[in-house]
Amino acid sequence: MNQIYDRVALIGLGLIASSMAHAMRAQGLAGEIVGTARSADTRAVAAEIGFCDRITETAAEAVQGADLVVLATPIGVMGAIAADIAPHLAAGATLTDVGSVKRAVIEAVGPHVPEGVHFIPGHPLAGTEKSGPHSGFASLFKNRWHLLVPVEGTDAKALARLRSLWEAMGANVDVMEADHHDLVLAVTSHAPHLIAYTMVGVADDLGRVTDSEVVQFSAAGFRDFTRIAASDPTMWRDVFLTNKDATLEILGRFTEELFALQRAIRTGDGDHLFDYFTRTRAIRRGIVEAGQDTDADNFGRGGA
Amino acid sequence: MNQIYDRVALIGLGLIASSMAHAMRAQGLAGEIVGTARSADTRAVAAEIGFCDRITETAAEAVQGADLVVLATPIGVMGAIAADIAPHLAAGATLTDVGSVKRAVIEAVGPHVPEGVHFIPGHPLAGTEKSGPHSGFASLFKNRWHLLVPVEGTDAKALARLRSLWEAMGANVDVMEADHHDLVLAVTSHAPHLIAYTMVGVADDLGRVTDSEVVQFSAAGFRDFTRIAASDPTMWRDVFLTNKDATLEILGRFTEELFALQRAIRTGDGDHLFDYFTRTRAIRRGIVEAGQDTDADNFGRGGA
Repeated sequence: MNQIYDRVALIGLGLIASSMAHAMRAQGLAGEIVGTARSADTRAVAAEIGFCDRITETAAEAVQGADLVVLATPIGVMGAIAADIAPHLAAGATLTDVGSVKRAVIEAVGPHVPEGVHFIPGHPLAGTEKSGPHSGFASLFKNRWHLLVPVEGTDAKALARLRSLWEAMGANVDVMEADHHDLVLAVTSHAPHLIAYTMVGVADDLGRVTDSEVVQFSAAGFRDFTRIAASDPTMWRDVFLTNKDATLEILGRFTEELFALQRAIRTGDGDHLFDYFTRTRAIRRGIVEAGQDTDADNFGRGGA
Repeated sequence: MNQIYDRVALIGLGLIASSMAHAMRAQGLAGEIVGTARSADTRAVAAEIGFCDRITETAAEAVQGADLVVLATPIGVMGAIAADIAPHLAAGATLTDVGSVKRAVIEAVGPHVPEGVHFIPGHPLAGTEKSGPHSGFASLFKNRWHLLVPVEGTDAKALARLRSLWEAMGANVDVMEADHHDLVLAVTSHAPHLIAYTMVGVADDLGRVTDSEVVQFSAAGFRDFTRIAASDPTMWRDVFLTNKDATLEILGRFTEELFALQRAIRTGDGDHLFDYFTRTRAIRRGIVEAGQDTDADNFGRGGA
């Protein structure tokens, strides 16, 4: 018996929550899984797939008697949900979330958390470009990072228990401070996503190149951008609105460097370009060596 | 017997040329494959792997008696090579290239092509982030596009013969006008590559986020950028220097759109962000439907 929590309440039933349910089910990590979502359609699809033991119409109902409550909605609504469920949270329960920004979640949710409830924010670095209750699968978190961002005074036992759940679902767990988390993610995820969204939008706008040409020849580098840019619009809107400062700082540096490279192209400064590209190549080697991607020979359908 | 050319000369022995050699060998498409490269190391590695029947020290030697000559070097040196080999090209031979930019190649190589030699530029939209003679494999061109960019007055028979070679190596062949090719590729490949290079450079520069954090958490979107940014620096320097106008035009539009999105973040205009992201998501669907990428459920180790 691997049970870590007696009753887990999942609020929001999208990619992350449904993957958690599948992963917990696969190993018996939760005695009971209760789910809820604002949309009746989402609840109906989740009920049909059957990854929850019970589905409730309201979040207040879902959290009753749960020893783990997971906020798995877009970040923008987490504060309101926290206010809503606060009176119904069981004493000694742990409240966590899976949002991609941590300072904003702490500020929105923190004030509503009652005495005796352990609030431990978290962020799984896992996902696909799919969303919704049908998109989840049990191995989503396998070998991915889960970042826990405990607030001051966090109970060590509650933290260890939550950590063991994520590890049991296959994740590598690391602990990070909220502001540092938001900066690291702005670099490794949020700014790259905005850039990919922008480039895909530009391609779509360009009258002289047809959409079908863009689609047909997408293998040449652009395909990876479209994959990134296919992610859930609501989730990403909230990421940018709530991690505003760090994202804008990184984008500012990005445009500065881009302008320097554009100038090198315009003036024909081949050495500048060559040196820059040689440096970035070394970073890629570090990532392959760190095991965050494969070096498989036949990956690439890229080309120039 | 599938032989299409009696003797194929490969000038440059990197990823594309070595993959062509493997693919031609696999199906007996060439009677003899002769290879050459400027670097003695490259020639030695190629000789050891053995994908050519014969390796020569000079390009002038390699092209003698060849009925197909393939320029597979960085674009920047193609003009000098063309001047060098011109007196040695066989009457009736076809001269092609595999460069990522076409107008610049036509301008650099075209004037050197002797009467009676068929010059038919081309560009395979295939590649990986690897380079060098050891990086080739026979299936590189399978189901990828090969764009032929014939100049005025191209011999229809010579064109059909070259087309049949690429089709036999597994490629889908399309014919395109040079300037349009360069614009389409600026959108689908060249600008995305420069943007990826830039973002990877920014990450490396940022003092407050360590390189090891960037590497460790790269799965969150950044990984796809590093893969793109690991491509061959010499090749890409030449791409940007020779497709300057189209690349700068696309980058200009890109920064314009990026600034609009940055302003939406700064002013908290969530509707603008949501609408933009919803539009780009639809483009991704088009690419999956066009068969240029899979919709496999467990692709993504992304997340935010």
